[in-house]
Amino acid sequence: MPIVTATRRLRFNAAHRIHNPALSDAENTRLFGKCNNPNWHGHNYTLEVSVTGEVDSITGYVMDLGQLRGIVEREVIDQMDHRNLNLEVEILRGINPTAENIVVACWNAIAPHVAPATLSKLRLWETENNYVEYAGH
Amino acid sequence: MPIVTATRRLRFNAAHRIHNPALSDAENTRLFGKCNNPNWHGHNYTLEVSVTGEVDSITGYVMDLGQLRGIVEREVIDQMDHRNLNLEVEILRGINPTAENIVVACWNAIAPHVAPATLSKLRLWETENNYVEYAGH
Amino acid sequence: MPIVTATRRLRFNAAHRIHNPALSDAENTRLFGKCNNPNWHGHNYTLEVSVTGEVDSITGYVMDLGQLRGIVEREVIDQMDHRNLNLEVEILRGINPTAENIVVACWNAIAPHVAPATLSKLRLWETENNYVEYAGH
Amino acid sequence: MPIVTATRRLRFNAAHRIHNPALSDAENTRLFGKCNNPNWHGHNYTLEVSVTGEVDSITGYVMDLGQLRGIVEREVIDQMDHRNLNLEVEILRGINPTAENIVVACWNAIAPHVAPATLSKLRLWETENNYVEYAGH
Amino acid sequence: MPIVTATRRLRFNAAHRIHNPALSDAENTRLFGKCNNPNWHGHNYTLEVSVTGEVDSITGYVMDLGQLRGIVEREVIDQMDHRNLNLEVEILRGINPTAENIVVACWNAIAPHVAPATLSKLRLWETENNYVEYAGH
Amino acid sequence: MPIVTATRRLRFNAAHRIHNPALSDAENTRLFGKCNNPNWHGHNYTLEVSVTGEVDSITGYVMDLGQLRGIVEREVIDQMDHRNLNLEVEILRGINPTAENIVVACWNAIAPHVAPATLSKLRLWETENNYVEYAGH
Repeated sequence: MPIVTATRRLRFNAAHRIHNPALSDAENTRLFGKCNNPNWHGHNYTLEVSVTGEVDSITGYVMDLGQLRGIVEREVIDQMDHRNLNLEVEILRGINPTAENIVVACWNAIAPHVAPATLSKLRLWETENNYVEYAGH
Repeated sequence: MPIVTATRRLRFNAAHRIHNPALSDAENTRLFGKCNNPNWHGHNYTLEVSVTGEVDSITGYVMDLGQLRGIVEREVIDQMDHRNLNLEVEILRGINPTAENIVVACWNAIAPHVAPATLSKLRLWETENNYVEYAGH
Repeated sequence: MPIVTATRRLRFNAAHRIHNPALSDAENTRLFGKCNNPNWHGHNYTLEVSVTGEVDSITGYVMDLGQLRGIVEREVIDQMDHRNLNLEVEILRGINPTAENIVVACWNAIAPHVAPATLSKLRLWETENNYVEYAGH
Repeated sequence: MPIVTATRRLRFNAAHRIHNPALSDAENTRLFGKCNNPNWHGHNYTLEVSVTGEVDSITGYVMDLGQLRGIVEREVIDQMDHRNLNLEVEILRGINPTAENIVVACWNAIAPHVAPATLSKLRLWETENNYVEYAGH
Repeated sequence: MPIVTATRRLRFNAAHRIHNPALSDAENTRLFGKCNNPNWHGHNYTLEVSVTGEVDSITGYVMDLGQLRGIVEREVIDQMDHRNLNLEVEILRGINPTAENIVVACWNAIAPHVAPATLSKLRLWETENNYVEYAGH
Repeated sequence: MPIVTATRRLRFNAAHRIHNPALSDAENTRLFGKCNNPNWHGHNYTLEVSVTGEVDSITGYVMDLGQLRGIVEREVIDQMDHRNLNLEVEILRGINPTAENIVVACWNAIAPHVAPATLSKLRLWETENNYVEYAGH
């Protein structure tokens, strides 16, 4: 059977600041500028979740994308949407919420749940001009 | 001379919560749901600024859009970008930062500065599925 | 209070054909070409629903857009999404489902339900290159 | 019959410079900056053509948008696409090709050809952040 | 010479239903839900066709994208646009038209025709939130 | 540390013609059609610059995308924006400015400047329907 990748896009809106608590305030300001604002800022994030696998001969699907949407909402979106990424999100506890760190945390939360397909890529858009991608290693 | 409308789109990223301090916490939760989260959430906002006027016979412009961009950045974007709309923005002081209230505050800040053109419409996108428009009255 | 227009975008996917049963097959083919295909074709439609009114002094909203979304889903989207617009949709019974006729039918279904705001415009995208707009008269 | 507006989007790619030959080079540079580059620059333009009228009771159309596309291609797109707007375009002869002046020239070329509908608006996107609109007066 | 990938996007609008005729109606409903509607639904599909090869030292092209467009229209778009994907499309005969199965069928139809470039990826968007990708194996 | 790819999108507007001066005019016309217009045409280009590397344990970044933007503006955008790609651009001197040749020239200009990350992909959009990608070999 052919190997196909299927992707579902989901959105969440959240507040954050880029901040490393191990550094001084001056160092945080120097490294992160206005993104370090202690009063927070925020984004409309878009997460593209790609799963890869054989096309199932019965369904014609790699994976039911409605089912994938449910998994991603349960594992990551529901805890991040309309939340503060520094203060309230279990999968980001103790993590500086850069796009890079968010996408890795999402990977770890989603990857165990998509078998028999495999999670092959996550792309996270932070603005319409910036995105990050992670393939699990 | 023909009357033309020219529009410039600008972006800002900000944190906010929908909250009316004159109401109880219970009432705020009932009215605003997850948008009332005390730990904030945020958005990538897009503001479309439309000015209308005669096309200038010398320049062929209603208004130099680079100049318009500078005015909008100075009057509204610079104080909202990477900021908390409830706590830090002079033009929103004491105002519940719904999209409707933000767009009216932007109007009042921008309108005095675009003569001889006139500010004819502001459109503010809060997400890719929601926007508000204001024409000054 | 200022008068603001707030807009919510919703999507539905449907099959249709452009066909006037009062005309002959030859005439339908001549007028509508490949859009008259008796085996149907389909689109991803986007409906933009705009309501206008005073900004409420308590909520800062023209209308809660979550509530508006619920109304539009109940009155029009739920009966059109993943449906055949010629065969299955109550609000289009006996109507040739051109974008123009769909947008008028949606208006009639939505307009009675948005008070105290008023429905001020519907825009229906049939493809990314074609859309129609209706303001109720 | 209800009055509906139908819109078709078309694209063209062209070179131009913003330049008023009645002014000195120094004055052109002062007014238009890098847009006055004598070696030209260019854009992917998008033109949105809106026609308004009664929905025809036979066709369900304000106007056949395939026919509208043909008119717009014949009257304006074919002479501007992959052309130099300062040197080669009949409808822009002697005109400084700002977006404002282009949209007015397009109006004059298209308006006589859409009866019994009426041309109600043109919107011309010069970049994804700038557009102009003209309604014929 | 450098190896570059060039991509052309094309669109088609079609009706379909997700249906496996080897299964009972109850099983089809259970697996495919509203996508199994016997009266069809439809989509605006976008197909991205990527070809990879050395940049030709005479033309500076991997492949003339106008020529690629012609090939893709002839081999797949012309038979799918404004058609029913379950009933009318030769390359989908006997195939349940999921996005996964459509993209594989398109691959098989296009791949033999792009030499000396090679077809390196197809991406098929079914909605703005769902897409599938296939690289030929 | 995980390996992540971060991407920044930048835009420039330029004039060009597709032309190989080693060929006759007739041959240029035959190969390049309207893209060979001696009076130029132009585009709004979008360049997506992707860098890959370990996520820095101090910053949580692969690379500061503001710094990346500065590098790309300095090395390629500033010399191409509002310019003629055949006449005025140092990195394209003597090069037929097809999208393929532009993307390779941009690679060579940007790649030396992003260490310790590595430039992993460039994608250049010439229109919303055409793009090219290069990974450095």
